[in-house]
Amino acid sequence: MGGNSIGSVFKVTTWGESHGPALGAVVDGCPPKIEFSESDIQRELDRRKPGSPGATARREPDRVEILSGIFEGKTTGLPISLLIRNADVDPSAYEPLRTILRPGHGDYTYLKKYGIRDHRGGGRASARETAARVAAGAIARRIIGLAGIEVQAYTKELAGIRAERDSLEEVNRNLLRCPDPAAAERMEEAIEQARKRGDTVGGIVEIIAQGCPAGLGEPVFDKMDADLAKGLMSIGSVKGVEIGAGFEASRMRGSECNDSIRPDGFLSNHAGGMLAGITTGQKIVIRVACKPVPSIFMEQETIDVTGVPAKITIRGRHDVCVIPRILPVCEAMVCIVLADHLLRQKIQ
Amino acid sequence: MGGNSIGSVFKVTTWGESHGPALGAVVDGCPPKIEFSESDIQRELDRRKPGSPGATARREPDRVEILSGIFEGKTTGLPISLLIRNADVDPSAYEPLRTILRPGHGDYTYLKKYGIRDHRGGGRASARETAARVAAGAIARRIIGLAGIEVQAYTKELAGIRAERDSLEEVNRNLLRCPDPAAAERMEEAIEQARKRGDTVGGIVEIIAQGCPAGLGEPVFDKMDADLAKGLMSIGSVKGVEIGAGFEASRMRGSECNDSIRPDGFLSNHAGGMLAGITTGQKIVIRVACKPVPSIFMEQETIDVTGVPAKITIRGRHDVCVIPRILPVCEAMVCIVLADHLLRQKIQ
Amino acid sequence: MGGNSIGSVFKVTTWGESHGPALGAVVDGCPPKIEFSESDIQRELDRRKPGSPGATARREPDRVEILSGIFEGKTTGLPISLLIRNADVDPSAYEPLRTILRPGHGDYTYLKKYGIRDHRGGGRASARETAARVAAGAIARRIIGLAGIEVQAYTKELAGIRAERDSLEEVNRNLLRCPDPAAAERMEEAIEQARKRGDTVGGIVEIIAQGCPAGLGEPVFDKMDADLAKGLMSIGSVKGVEIGAGFEASRMRGSECNDSIRPDGFLSNHAGGMLAGITTGQKIVIRVACKPVPSIFMEQETIDVTGVPAKITIRGRHDVCVIPRILPVCEAMVCIVLADHLLRQKIQ
Amino acid sequence: MGGNSIGSVFKVTTWGESHGPALGAVVDGCPPKIEFSESDIQRELDRRKPGSPGATARREPDRVEILSGIFEGKTTGLPISLLIRNADVDPSAYEPLRTILRPGHGDYTYLKKYGIRDHRGGGRASARETAARVAAGAIARRIIGLAGIEVQAYTKELAGIRAERDSLEEVNRNLLRCPDPAAAERMEEAIEQARKRGDTVGGIVEIIAQGCPAGLGEPVFDKMDADLAKGLMSIGSVKGVEIGAGFEASRMRGSECNDSIRPDGFLSNHAGGMLAGITTGQKIVIRVACKPVPSIFMEQETIDVTGVPAKITIRGRHDVCVIPRILPVCEAMVCIVLADHLLRQKIQ
Repeated sequence: MGGNSIGSVFKVTTWGESHGPALGAVVDGCPPKIEFSESDIQRELDRRKPGSPGATARREPDRVEILSGIFEGKTTGLPISLLIRNADVDPSAYEPLRTILRPGHGDYTYLKKYGIRDHRGGGRASARETAARVAAGAIARRIIGLAGIEVQAYTKELAGIRAERDSLEEVNRNLLRCPDPAAAERMEEAIEQARKRGDTVGGIVEIIAQGCPAGLGEPVFDKMDADLAKGLMSIGSVKGVEIGAGFEASRMRGSECNDSIRPDGFLSNHAGGMLAGITTGQKIVIRVACKPVPSIFMEQETIDVTGVPAKITIRGRHDVCVIPRILPVCEAMVCIVLADHLLRQKIQ
Repeated sequence: MGGNSIGSVFKVTTWGESHGPALGAVVDGCPPKIEFSESDIQRELDRRKPGSPGATARREPDRVEILSGIFEGKTTGLPISLLIRNADVDPSAYEPLRTILRPGHGDYTYLKKYGIRDHRGGGRASARETAARVAAGAIARRIIGLAGIEVQAYTKELAGIRAERDSLEEVNRNLLRCPDPAAAERMEEAIEQARKRGDTVGGIVEIIAQGCPAGLGEPVFDKMDADLAKGLMSIGSVKGVEIGAGFEASRMRGSECNDSIRPDGFLSNHAGGMLAGITTGQKIVIRVACKPVPSIFMEQETIDVTGVPAKITIRGRHDVCVIPRILPVCEAMVCIVLADHLLRQKIQ
Repeated sequence: MGGNSIGSVFKVTTWGESHGPALGAVVDGCPPKIEFSESDIQRELDRRKPGSPGATARREPDRVEILSGIFEGKTTGLPISLLIRNADVDPSAYEPLRTILRPGHGDYTYLKKYGIRDHRGGGRASARETAARVAAGAIARRIIGLAGIEVQAYTKELAGIRAERDSLEEVNRNLLRCPDPAAAERMEEAIEQARKRGDTVGGIVEIIAQGCPAGLGEPVFDKMDADLAKGLMSIGSVKGVEIGAGFEASRMRGSECNDSIRPDGFLSNHAGGMLAGITTGQKIVIRVACKPVPSIFMEQETIDVTGVPAKITIRGRHDVCVIPRILPVCEAMVCIVLADHLLRQKIQ
Repeated sequence: MGGNSIGSVFKVTTWGESHGPALGAVVDGCPPKIEFSESDIQRELDRRKPGSPGATARREPDRVEILSGIFEGKTTGLPISLLIRNADVDPSAYEPLRTILRPGHGDYTYLKKYGIRDHRGGGRASARETAARVAAGAIARRIIGLAGIEVQAYTKELAGIRAERDSLEEVNRNLLRCPDPAAAERMEEAIEQARKRGDTVGGIVEIIAQGCPAGLGEPVFDKMDADLAKGLMSIGSVKGVEIGAGFEASRMRGSECNDSIRPDGFLSNHAGGMLAGITTGQKIVIRVACKPVPSIFMEQETIDVTGVPAKITIRGRHDVCVIPRILPVCEAMVCIVLADHLLRQKIQ
């Protein structure tokens, strides 16, 4: 009920605050006998680390420890508990935030909801929570990988600069993981300019899943697109999700938008890999809109916890742009949703 | 598990096929002692009826019968079962679809998933299923109405024609329920032109919720925006969902996008009424992209159930555009999600 | 949340009141392509009908109508909606119960919980609600039947008279469905005596499931025995549940109670077919204790809805003993729980 | 789906194996602003420790660490993660169990279910798993304590020796926590005799909850008694659960069993504190039957993992009787179920 779990069969529960002792995840419903180790998770966590353009200077070693559910290198079918200690914790830096509510953050709404809040680093509303998702997502990725499904996210747009090429080989060749190297250069520049101003920028992430069999997803409410939308919209910065042609589909005519079917497959993929909420076997294509990071270094107008007007100028270590660090988080959510539906389909 | 339920506390399960004997919903978790009658549902169902520009000629009386959970005009806290008989059913018209798979519909994916399908009118994948959602949504609307929340959907864009004005009074003055009467005229024209060609068009719906208290929504996965995105994306035609500034937010700078806070409220609403997944007390603003209706009257390339190439020209009674009939469906989904979170918040 | 659903994969939701227009069930999660018809349900409903010793004179035709999820004689994988109209409804007989709270019934507790209650025939707390369980159970029975599992309940004890023989052939030869014909005669006599006094009696039902494969059930909370206990204890009259040796096991020594294992099976079955919550492949053996029917025809001391002392003498049509009519209900609950776990195991 | 969670609103997930690095629980859905500290949990864990008659010599310091969800001494409404490191782990002692399947344990069924098993100390099927339940139960106990509910378990019967007195003061005066001191002496003797033979004994635990308001519990499937039965039957040793008069109720007449109602309360409590699945406000009374510990030190007949006959004589540190160490576990499960229903009732 608390809202910290996702999935019906492959069920992920995350817990932990940004500046508490640790954070982690419990994965229940993972099938047995799958080879899996801490290094499979560590690889993903490392991709989420600071170190790219626009990233925070906070040092997060993010060493994961598997506490249960793996025996002699294999899953046992029992819950897998993942622990990540919070290493580089400096709560004193957040002392001013005990009373001041930062615009664009969850400070105001957590206070309204719970009447109490852990102000240190945003508490549970911090982007740091996504480390637990990435850890759990690594397990999901292994499960769908055994079925031949591969998930990849890349920077489609940043600060309004759009990648015009979709070359997946390029993605691994630049720090922004952009498929268009020319655009990537302009994106880096935009980040640099924002940083100088003490401002931040947003962008659009595209996620694709290849090798997904037809027939995954459920009718009506638990449609594949509905569950993907929920999983991705549950990431703090995301303000929009679209599948296939997405918002552009609303401007097409039916005769354009329908993907003709041939014995060897579909002629186009405006549907983005799913029809009536169930996968077609085509490539799944999703885009998510990420708002700019709310922690800007410029003075902002706000109130304190008693409702009195206040000014705030945020200090500390913050990303200028959630991209590219959000990419593994987006991938993790798509992996988790796909793993859940892959296992659900076994029941048929 | 079957995927036909939504909600944690206010739980809605729908059932039924387009051309089966009936369809309906069971609502479990409705609080007791709320005055409620069949006419409260009928009013909503009537808004979903054909009769507007772009709508099918199928006559759907859609009379709802309440079978349980209401005693002497009040809810009892026990499950409310809603029944709508399928009156104007003509399955023979669908006999050719027993073997041919329509592009843009769920025919192909249902066959892949289940290995069996009710081909009559799209079976459960038919838009007719949404009548059950609208019926259940009427109960949700009553619950949130008691808390002062009002939900309204209108046509923001149709066939690429955008409403430039947002006058809510205008919404009830034209059949397309568009807040911009000049745009509404051009939209009607676009529908008429598509109809003549045997083609269809799509559009963008905007849904707002006013009067929503701050503090609704859960952290992490069951964020208010995540659940709204799931609920809306679960509507068959929807290919994209955005909250507040949505995709446009990805092009803003942090200093633009952050909504400053003052003692008497926020200075802007780029967040669309929620921060960190929890409502701020501001107006909730959501937009959904609806693809054009896939049932076009032009010849299309496809395959039959054995994989052999085939041509199909759809006949029968179909909408040219899901708008405006989808508006009450969008409202129903928002009402259901809000009612669920309103009741969840009581646990705090 | 409302508490009217059971099952994780094979999910059953029931609805309806004793004297409302109808009652029914929605089964979500039934696999596709299973041959199934209304007569499969009707057969089970007929077994629950009045007509045996100790049974009410209420005529309940209990005709079930399948409204969805079955297409041309086979399940489609989509929700199956079952409707049973309440035919022989005489609410006026219950008018005195509008204000008086019957001892041993849910009248008092429903009023305390909801602050409103449908007093007619006990409303949703009536044993009539179990008709919907039996209908849904017929679907579950078909699913587990395809896996070779057979479930049978019989009268183990009635009014303190114990069946000393366990001859399953005898079960179908007497109206009380007792495996010991001599005991059955004495049980009938005890019922007759209670009826003359205006009193009622209880008894113990034993339920066995044969052919169940090893490996069903989940660890920790969703153990097979835990889910069976919940399913059976959720039947109104049940006050106790035991598995295998049950309460007697608490008086055994470990060396007696442990079932030795041989290559061709276990040497005994004190475990009742499950170890650590997971089936062993042996016969599942469960016993449930049913309290006497609370509707007695003798004057009782009670209060009315305002808390004022009152006397009540119940009139109308009531069973003297829930046995044997509760037998198909017990079977239905065991079938539902087994079907759910059989499908859950597919995920491994 | 994995079966390691319980509760609808107050949701507990446990994880961990007997001889893995750690075990723990995540509690989601705990209301905010409740004062709570590690010592509240430690007190309960200490009660579960070895040290009483019949207990193992394994040293389990069982230090709990709260990793999230508590801020400055108060719950935040966010998930509470509890960690207990496995300190006194000696897996080598279990090496012979890698191939031999112990009678009366989950070795055989886990192998059948998962095809892989952590043989060390029973893995997840070990009674050690209940430490996580006790830890989570401490939080539940605090929640219901704020509503005035107190839960207490005691030894009602051991090795067939029944406590004839029900003096709650006596419970804390003897190590077996038996309300009848004379019986307690004979019980200790029975344990000692079993220990000498290398055998084990079982018993019956009675659990009472006082101060519970009327109106808790849900209709139909999530009845209070159904959820209590599930929670208690999910404890490894439990083979039977009864509420109030329980199995004895099946031998009563209706006129005996019905609890008459007076303005100031009920005249008796055969119902054990609930009617139609909803609490009456009377004392809740439950009894559970615990089988003898399966780890006996006598030679037993069994098979190995390849199905070949084998003899086994268990060595190591084991309890002779689960009582009294199971008492805090029973209390924890009752606290968890009551907390869940107490919070569910807030939604009405």
